[in-house]
Amino acid sequence: MTRPPGDRRAGWRVALGNVVFNNDTPAGRAFDLVLIVLIVTSIGVVMLDSVRPFRAAYGPALKQVEWVLTLLFSLEYLLRLVTARHPWNYARSFFGLVDLLSILPGYLALFVPGAETLLIVRVLRLLRIFRILKLARYLSEASVLTEAIRASAAKITVFLVTVLTLVTIIGALMYLIEGPANGFTSIPTSIYWAIVTLTTVGYGDIAPKTPLGKGLASLAMILGYGILAVPTGIVTVSLARAQGTQDRRLTPRVCPRCGLEGHDPDARFCKRCGEELPSA
Amino acid sequence: MTRPPGDRRAGWRVALGNVVFNNDTPAGRAFDLVLIVLIVTSIGVVMLDSVRPFRAAYGPALKQVEWVLTLLFSLEYLLRLVTARHPWNYARSFFGLVDLLSILPGYLALFVPGAETLLIVRVLRLLRIFRILKLARYLSEASVLTEAIRASAAKITVFLVTVLTLVTIIGALMYLIEGPANGFTSIPTSIYWAIVTLTTVGYGDIAPKTPLGKGLASLAMILGYGILAVPTGIVTVSLARAQGTQDRRLTPRVCPRCGLEGHDPDARFCKRCGEELPSA
Amino acid sequence: MTRPPGDRRAGWRVALGNVVFNNDTPAGRAFDLVLIVLIVTSIGVVMLDSVRPFRAAYGPALKQVEWVLTLLFSLEYLLRLVTARHPWNYARSFFGLVDLLSILPGYLALFVPGAETLLIVRVLRLLRIFRILKLARYLSEASVLTEAIRASAAKITVFLVTVLTLVTIIGALMYLIEGPANGFTSIPTSIYWAIVTLTTVGYGDIAPKTPLGKGLASLAMILGYGILAVPTGIVTVSLARAQGTQDRRLTPRVCPRCGLEGHDPDARFCKRCGEELPSA
Amino acid sequence: MTRPPGDRRAGWRVALGNVVFNNDTPAGRAFDLVLIVLIVTSIGVVMLDSVRPFRAAYGPALKQVEWVLTLLFSLEYLLRLVTARHPWNYARSFFGLVDLLSILPGYLALFVPGAETLLIVRVLRLLRIFRILKLARYLSEASVLTEAIRASAAKITVFLVTVLTLVTIIGALMYLIEGPANGFTSIPTSIYWAIVTLTTVGYGDIAPKTPLGKGLASLAMILGYGILAVPTGIVTVSLARAQGTQDRRLTPRVCPRCGLEGHDPDARFCKRCGEELPSA
Repeated sequence: MTRPPGDRRAGWRVALGNVVFNNDTPAGRAFDLVLIVLIVTSIGVVMLDSVRPFRAAYGPALKQVEWVLTLLFSLEYLLRLVTARHPWNYARSFFGLVDLLSILPGYLALFVPGAETLLIVRVLRLLRIFRILKLARYLSEASVLTEAIRASAAKITVFLVTVLTLVTIIGALMYLIEGPANGFTSIPTSIYWAIVTLTTVGYGDIAPKTPLGKGLASLAMILGYGILAVPTGIVTVSLARAQGTQDRRLTPRVCPRCGLEGHDPDARFCKRCGEELPSA
Repeated sequence: MTRPPGDRRAGWRVALGNVVFNNDTPAGRAFDLVLIVLIVTSIGVVMLDSVRPFRAAYGPALKQVEWVLTLLFSLEYLLRLVTARHPWNYARSFFGLVDLLSILPGYLALFVPGAETLLIVRVLRLLRIFRILKLARYLSEASVLTEAIRASAAKITVFLVTVLTLVTIIGALMYLIEGPANGFTSIPTSIYWAIVTLTTVGYGDIAPKTPLGKGLASLAMILGYGILAVPTGIVTVSLARAQGTQDRRLTPRVCPRCGLEGHDPDARFCKRCGEELPSA
Repeated sequence: MTRPPGDRRAGWRVALGNVVFNNDTPAGRAFDLVLIVLIVTSIGVVMLDSVRPFRAAYGPALKQVEWVLTLLFSLEYLLRLVTARHPWNYARSFFGLVDLLSILPGYLALFVPGAETLLIVRVLRLLRIFRILKLARYLSEASVLTEAIRASAAKITVFLVTVLTLVTIIGALMYLIEGPANGFTSIPTSIYWAIVTLTTVGYGDIAPKTPLGKGLASLAMILGYGILAVPTGIVTVSLARAQGTQDRRLTPRVCPRCGLEGHDPDARFCKRCGEELPSA
Repeated sequence: MTRPPGDRRAGWRVALGNVVFNNDTPAGRAFDLVLIVLIVTSIGVVMLDSVRPFRAAYGPALKQVEWVLTLLFSLEYLLRLVTARHPWNYARSFFGLVDLLSILPGYLALFVPGAETLLIVRVLRLLRIFRILKLARYLSEASVLTEAIRASAAKITVFLVTVLTLVTIIGALMYLIEGPANGFTSIPTSIYWAIVTLTTVGYGDIAPKTPLGKGLASLAMILGYGILAVPTGIVTVSLARAQGTQDRRLTPRVCPRCGLEGHDPDARFCKRCGEELPSA
């Protein structure tokens, strides 16, 4: 049982908090395992409840299981609030908000029929699974991914604005060329078609029928072909740089004079004090 | 109020021009903000006007708003022409042409019914938004993107000519194999199908029905699979090089003894020979 | 005839095993060639048997060929078991399991009609073709590929969990927005639609019909656009590193004076300090 | 008029050959230009001839133009054969075969109605356009592309075999799960569906209808998602390396002692003789 200095919680709160929030004790691990099983069950119940034959056959039973789970998750939420070292910090954290959102629709369904479908938001709670498995490694990988995305945020913004402008112009042109008779019933609908085409999804619920429309659509597709390459290039270059930064952090050479770490693989002298470095 | 040397505009033209063209004064920023709101409104009006139920209910009102906006934008265009230091340069610039194209369809609609749909070109005016937000950073990102595209223009041309040739041959073969009875009504239509297939859009409005046609289509798809990789590779390599060039431009220090370039911004000594570097 | 030390098989088992398992003798190569021909034939027979007109015309004949091939492959399996140096190791190896799976459905079809379709698993036996062709080179390429995939397994896991969470949330939202009347009959069906959309497959068997649904679908598509870039970036960076590792493994020379690695295969002097390099 | 040593052609053959094969004289350039115009015309005629309304209205006229063009191209082919320095080499070259294939269907149509559609193969002749435009630069770009593809041929083969095996297995499973009642009429058709799905084309002419089928299809799509990344990664890495090789070839530093070219940008000493290099 660890108790950080300056912690003013009562003993039972510290003990319970270690079970609820940590998973380095057998009790903590058992708690997390039971939780994951309950979350998976609750997601399965919400999904089955939406399938008509299942609902017809087992509707009331499914509702009861949902209620029991909502009550259990409410209990867990209260437990977390009570045992957290800083309850307010927990309530405002990502997982705190997800935990709250996972129980609210259950009570909302008492007043608004159908609101129980929103319980599917519980799927977000599954992200806790990273905590139970090899936490550190996966989160460092996730941070490489998010770092790569953040580093290219400006490029992605320029890219998105260009795509949205393009899609609006192409949509308006197709509305003029094809018109409501061929399924392009309005400019917003035509923009929807342009997005479906440029992203190469291509449902085919709306498709050009006039020769001119097919020609413009062909142009848009070949354009989309090239445009698809841009975000891939951006993310790849960002990932390569983030990977390089991570590699350097892992290179274990330390300057013997000033103690600087993180030297390039080809460095022979410390870039801060000029001392010769030990060979890698 | 800034007045560059050699400027022969009257005082009121300089003052007004600073409001209209710059956004480093409160008045200039307010002008730009009002403009963006008006542009967004005008795009929304053109879109709503194309949705049948809206037009039926609010048609005349939408028309009036469109007219007011067209008049306001005309006034703005005249203002820009009058206060620009070189009116002719402005009129021929990208934004000058877009500003003109944004008002012409409004007047054209007096003679050609339906021409008001072309007002959607006003969406291009939204690109001004980059001016108001962190201009410099985004434009430098955009220049990395366009530099990357320009650097690989020759490769992209070779690629496009190859794709167009391929698409024509595949289209003609499918026209022979499937024929008009299966929806491949002509060679141009078949080429349209080939483009839809090779870009992996795949509407499904035309699809092969004979075994031989399905076989050729399968080949085309797997080919398209590999071909899709080429522009992505081109853009990624170009982006990586453009990024490298930009990086090197930011740290232009050279070791005075061994000539090594590309030092980290925080480096004080050359990592290769240990010589002290000039401060950045 | 090679006989490794410590091998306690009888002489005829060693001789037969060399024919069955190796392809460095004319007999071994002939055996492999006949095998490939039989495998291709058997796959062709299973395919043709599934095409209704063929089955109607040649059903009994196809069945007989299938039986003969199943018996031949059973014989081959027994031969491999008998002549292998470690029969149990062979039986548990990848190819051992594939060989067993390739004959079981033939016998299963005696009791369960239709089970012969499972004979298509024989296609996996075709992977032996790599053994006959330039084995070494292709397998080293395959190992670069699998190494690249293994190196990015953690990143791919994070990515897959994110995609599955996203797809569940989007699917549930679309079920709420569009509902069973528009084809989104249940949450699992809506998740299927979300996967079809995010992977840009876009069958169009289910497509949004309400304006709000089309808006959410557009968002999902543009998101999918960016998400598509992540696995590509991961694999590209991993491939580049695996390639780099392979390159360095091929030229392991180090400069004796300055310690520089990664010299070109034709280099005789260090390009950094001019020292003579040890010959490769 | 250039005449290489050892050329035994008569004077008029050399003169005509220079016009027909080269484009460094005004006559040669005019010849090429007329040729391109004729090729574009002939492709346009074949395309228009396949559009039913055009054929109905101008059928006989189009036929006549086709005949005149076929005769002109036949004349050109004979001219090339006669004036080429090595007629047999020309006839077997890529462009020689294309030139022959571009006239054969015209004569074939006398006996087999409809064969004139094959005249579309003339589109390949358009590749000559590279000769007329900035030849050298584009061809060097194309050679970087083909070099990149050749370098990764082994990887692409491993990849294609994997995809084909996967597609056969998935197709057979879907045939078992969905069956002819849901459109999966045979294993080849199901394999066609699997290719359409894995390449993310997704026509929707065949789509899974049972829950189990939709589940397997979802798995296949997410798999296809990751698989799509592999060829892109392969081509990108190959392109980056081919680009690097080209860059080094363009680096103009020459060793002052032994004359070796193509030094790395960071090289300070010649890797062949150890001499100090001039700084870049």
